[in-house]
Amino acid sequence: MKAATYCGNKTFTVDSKPVAALGSGEVQIDVAYCGICGTDLHIYLGHMDQRVGFERTIGHEMSGVISAIGDNVEGLEIGQHIVVRPLDHCGECPACKAGHEHICHNLKFIGIDTEGAFQQKWNVAAHTIHVLPNSLDLSHAALIEPLAVACHDVDRGQVSAGEDVLVIGGGPIGMLIALVARHAGANVTISEINENRLAYAQKLGFETLNPKSDDVAKLVHERTGGKGADVVFEVSGSQPGVDLMTEAAAVRGRIVMVAIHASKPQIDMFKFFWRELELIGARVYLKSDYEQAMTLLAEGVVDCDSFITDIKSLDDIQAAFEALTANPNAMKSMIKITQDA
Amino acid sequence: MKAATYCGNKTFTVDSKPVAALGSGEVQIDVAYCGICGTDLHIYLGHMDQRVGFERTIGHEMSGVISAIGDNVEGLEIGQHIVVRPLDHCGECPACKAGHEHICHNLKFIGIDTEGAFQQKWNVAAHTIHVLPNSLDLSHAALIEPLAVACHDVDRGQVSAGEDVLVIGGGPIGMLIALVARHAGANVTISEINENRLAYAQKLGFETLNPKSDDVAKLVHERTGGKGADVVFEVSGSQPGVDLMTEAAAVRGRIVMVAIHASKPQIDMFKFFWRELELIGARVYLKSDYEQAMTLLAEGVVDCDSFITDIKSLDDIQAAFEALTANPNAMKSMIKITQDA
Ligand SMILES: [Zn+2]
Ligand SMILES: [Zn+2]
Ligand SMILES: [Zn+2]
Ligand SMILES: [Zn+2]
Repeated sequence: MKAATYCGNKTFTVDSKPVAALGSGEVQIDVAYCGICGTDLHIYLGHMDQRVGFERTIGHEMSGVISAIGDNVEGLEIGQHIVVRPLDHCGECPACKAGHEHICHNLKFIGIDTEGAFQQKWNVAAHTIHVLPNSLDLSHAALIEPLAVACHDVDRGQVSAGEDVLVIGGGPIGMLIALVARHAGANVTISEINENRLAYAQKLGFETLNPKSDDVAKLVHERTGGKGADVVFEVSGSQPGVDLMTEAAAVRGRIVMVAIHASKPQIDMFKFFWRELELIGARVYLKSDYEQAMTLLAEGVVDCDSFITDIKSLDDIQAAFEALTANPNAMKSMIKITQDA
Repeated sequence: MKAATYCGNKTFTVDSKPVAALGSGEVQIDVAYCGICGTDLHIYLGHMDQRVGFERTIGHEMSGVISAIGDNVEGLEIGQHIVVRPLDHCGECPACKAGHEHICHNLKFIGIDTEGAFQQKWNVAAHTIHVLPNSLDLSHAALIEPLAVACHDVDRGQVSAGEDVLVIGGGPIGMLIALVARHAGANVTISEINENRLAYAQKLGFETLNPKSDDVAKLVHERTGGKGADVVFEVSGSQPGVDLMTEAAAVRGRIVMVAIHASKPQIDMFKFFWRELELIGARVYLKSDYEQAMTLLAEGVVDCDSFITDIKSLDDIQAAFEALTANPNAMKSMIKITQDA
C-alpha cells in the first residue's frame, strides 16, 4: 500500500509500504479522503519538527471504510463507512479522571504524535471510530473533523439564538464556526482581510467587515445598538485580532480563544475588569461534538462542494501542500487516498 | 459639619461646610467610619486626577446612621444603621437593560465620580442603602464594601467545596477573597511577597508561598497531585502575577481577574487553548454580594479587630494616607468620621 511520509524540509515522499499488523482492539481502514489541516501545513513548514520528527505519515481530517477488524473489537463491521476522532488519552491523569479526556495531560493526537491518514491502509484503535450513514459522500465526510472543532468552539461560547457573534478570521475554521453559530440562531459577522475569503463569506450570506478599511469594533457596536458582540471567536492568531476581541465584546461578552498563539500577545485586562468579559479556551472536541458535526453535515449546514476547493491524489500530495502555501485563498484542500473511493 | 476634600498633589484639606440640602429620594447619613480603599490611595497619589478633579470629597467603604429622610423615600427610618452600595447606574444602556446594572455603560461610582463619605453628613440616593442589624459594630460594618468585592469575585469564580484555590496577592482584597473562598469550602493558598502580609495570612491559617523564594506554580501542582489550582484569583496587578495565573491553573481552571491592569500585560494564550482555561473579569458587586457580605461579617468570617490595622480621626486623614503610602503592610486603615460613633 502507498503512504506519504513527511521527511522534513517541506518535503513529502510517497512510497509503497507493507501493511502494518493489526493489533488487539484495532481496526484497519481503507482511507478514502484526508483534508489538509492548518496544523498539517505547520508541520510541512517545519514548525513542529521536534514533535513530529522526519519519518511520520501525518493526516487526520479523514474518511474511510473498515477493511479488517482485530481481536477484541465489538460492534463494528467490515465495509462500514467511518471517520476517526484522532485522540488518544491516558485515562490516568487528573484531567482524564475529571472527565476531560480531550485535554488529557498526556494526550496523543493521532496523525501528529502517532501515524496518520495520508496512507491507504491505516490501523487505529476501535474507540476512535464514528460510523457514518452510507448516504454521506466520503469526500464530504472528511470535513467532519474540522466541523467538530467548530461545534466545540461554538459550544464553549454557549452561543444562543438571537445573539450577536463576531468571528475574527475567515479561514476554514472561522468559516465553519460562522456556519455553526448561524445554525444556532446567532447573527454572525466575519472580520477578515483576504478579499477572496470575504467574497466567499458574502456568498454564504454573512455580514463581513475588513479591518484594513473598516473600524470593526465601532461598526459592531453601531450595528448592535451600542451593545457589542455577545460572543467573539478569535481565530486570527494575531495581535490586531486580540486587540479587536476585547474592543468589540459586549458587557459580559464571551471571547472564545480558538487560534493558537505561539507567542504571548498583549491583552487588555482593564477591559476584562471594566466589562466583566470572559475568555474561554477551546481545544479539539468531545465525542458529542463529532456526533453534532455528523448531524449538521447530513443536514446540509455546510455547502461542501464550494467549501472543498480542490481534490488531489496521494501521489500529488507534495504539489497540494505547495499550492496551499502559495494560495491562502483556498478553503479546504483534500487528498484522495484510495483509488476507488 | 466637617468634610475632607482631595485637592490634588497628595493633599486633603478638612474644612467646615454647610450641610447640603436633601433632595427627593435621598437620605442623609451621619457617617460613622470610612475605610481607605486602594482606589482612594490611587486618587491621593494623583493617578485619577482627570476623573476626580480637585474639589472632591472621596470615600466609599463606609458605615453610618440615618439622620434625615427626604421626600419619596419608602421603608427607611431615622436611626437605622446602614451601609451604602456606592453605585449609580443609568437604567437605559444595553448593560442595564440586560440586568447588569453594576457594569452599566454610564456607571457613576459614588465617592469617586460624585461626592463620597469622608464627611460627617452625607446625602445619598435611598436605593443605595442596606440596613444593618444594630448588633453589628459600625467599625466592622465599614468592611462590608471590600468584603462584597470579595464575595463577588468568589461568586464569579464559582468556587465550590473541596476545590483548590490560589490567590495571587495577599493585600486587603486578596485576603478577603481567601477568607470567603475558604468559607465556601475551598483549600486556599496565598502567594505574596510581603513578609508581614505572609505572616498575617499564616496567622489566619492559610497556606502561603512567596514567589521570591518558591517556585509557586510547581508547588501548587505538587500539592494538588499534579492537577493545579481549580480557581486562581489574580489580585497582584503585575506581569509575574499574570504569568503565574496561567502556569498554576488546572485543566479547565477558572482565573478571576480582580486586579486593575492599567497597561496591557502579555498573556500566555497557548495555555488557554492547551488546558481550556477560562479568564473571568469581575467588577464591584451586586445587591446579593452586599447581602452575603453582611451575613459573613455577622458570622465572624472576618477577624475584624486584626484586619483593621488602625483607626484615625477625620482631622488626621492626611496623616492616615501618608502612613498608608509609607507602609504597605497595613490591611485596612479606617477613618472615624463622626465623633460619637
Ligand atoms: Zn485538523
Ligand atoms: Zn489523561
Ligand atoms: Zn473600595
Ligand atoms: Zn446603564
